[in-house]
Amino acid sequence: MKTYKIALLPGDGIGRDVTAAAWAVLEKAARLNGFSLDATSYPWSCDYYLENGSMMPADGIETLRPFDAILLGAVGWPRKVPDSVSLHGLLLPIRKAFVQYANIRPHRLLPGVQGPLRADRFDILCIRENTEGEYSGAGGRVHQGTDNEVAVETSIFTRTGVERILRFGFEQARARRGKLASVTKSNAQKYSMVFWDEITQRLSAEYPDVEVTSYHIDAMAARMVMAPDSLDVVVASNLFGDILTDLGAAIQGGLGFAASANINPDRSAPSMFEPVHGSAPDIAHLGIANPIAAIWSGAMMLEHLGETAAAARVMASIEATTARGIGAIPGKDKTDAILASVLS
Amino acid sequence: MKTYKIALLPGDGIGRDVTAAAWAVLEKAARLNGFSLDATSYPWSCDYYLENGSMMPADGIETLRPFDAILLGAVGWPRKVPDSVSLHGLLLPIRKAFVQYANIRPHRLLPGVQGPLRADRFDILCIRENTEGEYSGAGGRVHQGTDNEVAVETSIFTRTGVERILRFGFEQARARRGKLASVTKSNAQKYSMVFWDEITQRLSAEYPDVEVTSYHIDAMAARMVMAPDSLDVVVASNLFGDILTDLGAAIQGGLGFAASANINPDRSAPSMFEPVHGSAPDIAHLGIANPIAAIWSGAMMLEHLGETAAAARVMASIEATTARGIGAIPGKDKTDAILASVLS
Ligand SMILES: CC(C)[C@H](C(=O)O)[C@@H](O)C(=O)O
Ligand SMILES: CC(C)[C@H](C(=O)O)[C@@H](O)C(=O)O
Repeated sequence: MKTYKIALLPGDGIGRDVTAAAWAVLEKAARLNGFSLDATSYPWSCDYYLENGSMMPADGIETLRPFDAILLGAVGWPRKVPDSVSLHGLLLPIRKAFVQYANIRPHRLLPGVQGPLRADRFDILCIRENTEGEYSGAGGRVHQGTDNEVAVETSIFTRTGVERILRFGFEQARARRGKLASVTKSNAQKYSMVFWDEITQRLSAEYPDVEVTSYHIDAMAARMVMAPDSLDVVVASNLFGDILTDLGAAIQGGLGFAASANINPDRSAPSMFEPVHGSAPDIAHLGIANPIAAIWSGAMMLEHLGETAAAARVMASIEATTARGIGAIPGKDKTDAILASVLS
Repeated sequence: MKTYKIALLPGDGIGRDVTAAAWAVLEKAARLNGFSLDATSYPWSCDYYLENGSMMPADGIETLRPFDAILLGAVGWPRKVPDSVSLHGLLLPIRKAFVQYANIRPHRLLPGVQGPLRADRFDILCIRENTEGEYSGAGGRVHQGTDNEVAVETSIFTRTGVERILRFGFEQARARRGKLASVTKSNAQKYSMVFWDEITQRLSAEYPDVEVTSYHIDAMAARMVMAPDSLDVVVASNLFGDILTDLGAAIQGGLGFAASANINPDRSAPSMFEPVHGSAPDIAHLGIANPIAAIWSGAMMLEHLGETAAAARVMASIEATTARGIGAIPGKDKTDAILASVLS
């Protein structure tokens, strides 16, 4: 029987709850589809940091490298460890080290789920650059603590980095409704964002079948709530993608429904699958966290592994469950319902 | 009779339509309230650029300095001049040169206007830093045109800049419902945004009557559509404020309803009043642009000049007009209706 080796990083807070839920569903789906998933779980988290002084061991990245994929819950617990430390110590280094440059986030209203918009159709795919740009981590502070203090933060965009994510976006648009929206802020940021726009413009000649439009991030945020039907695939920088995908998550009914995949398209290192939501420490371990984002992320993992039938089975189970109108019931019962549906 | 000297910068596209509409309403309101407005109009725009090679004359800033206030329409016409040139040549230098560090943007649903959210209450005040941060204009590109090209864009935050906008935010919260939301992305940007969070934290001790909460920009975008009622005053950096106020504009029914004031709180230079919307060249001069954002911005100007009664008269006329259900009729007729209402 084919076996995939999966690294589990439950992380913090509800990350643990939803990873457990997703794992139960994925394992069942695997067995029913004739393959197996072999999990190794690592306790890297803010608690781990408090004991060991780092979010993961020095060889953490090398430990993860041999796996077929990584399933992550959520990272961060601000009362224990500042987010700027915990995220830069675990989540962000993995995305960068494994060149998971494409962060894919599907946003659509599942059957039976009511979103905050009057509009009842919502189906976009966000492609977020995941390794550079505004998340480069370059910067510093001078005259710290004085009135004269200055902090700088530098966004770094490389041609390779911008070109590969745009190409990925064009390909995804080609596979969907053929419309690509590229998001920048080139009217205010005349180095980085003008650079991005130029590359978009140049690449568009290679994809004559894709209709590409450039939007400013402010206009795109407005468009997502005013005319979501006009959008298909949206490609954006690391920060802009981050913002638009939380907005997309809200529109699809909440962060608890938003899945994501951090993909290394060249498969030179493992890809990582994680819900868009955070660790929500205040509701951790109460059995009420919505597991759907994590389970959906797991389905994206199965898809990436080539197990299309199993992925479809999981998605069908999620949709059958929400369609029964239990989108709003507590997490634990939802997990049970999805599990039951997978088995049926 | 008291006279205020106002510089008009209609700018491009519908900027001209809405400035004319606003001016007609403001002049009438002034006369009825016993003062007068004296306009000097400057043609600085993309057309001006095509003729003169710059968006405004070299002494443009000094020309504007003696005025009591500036009323601006919209700047930009991408097919004629790249936005990165037109905005950096006119709008952004004015905001910076006149230390208009507080960009105030009220977002609320006017009577009779239906927004895209199911929720029917929306009333927040966004305070956007307007002179530094992500709009510093610092950066560059190397190896231009080669595969090795890199573009960098540096955000610069000063303690003076951050402290003054946060204090402004605290004061505004004090004058409203006492709640301040400070927006950063300190989990990913560990220099600039951590700096901002630290200053927020320290200042909060001076405003014990204000309840301040820090949010990440992604979570705030989601919150604005999911739980807008939980928000009162929102304070954010230049870029984050830009994004959130377009989102706020969308939620209040569209960009055509969103007013703004670029305020120099020390009154050491003129403040500037402008609708949030852009120049929308495709609908310019058709008489269909919504003038309400510009008229509302004009009311904010009267307020700033100390003409509170006239400002209230203009706002009442806007609201009387939208309440009659004509929020959705074309711009020209709306202007006429508001004008008639001001006079009544
Ligand atoms: C936790 C945070 C650093 C992260 C990000 O901004 O990338 C999260 O918001 C996400 O969207 O995955
Ligand atoms: C035109 C553009 C540079 C401007 C900005 O981003 O500040 C506009 O979007 C605004 O919000 O006033």
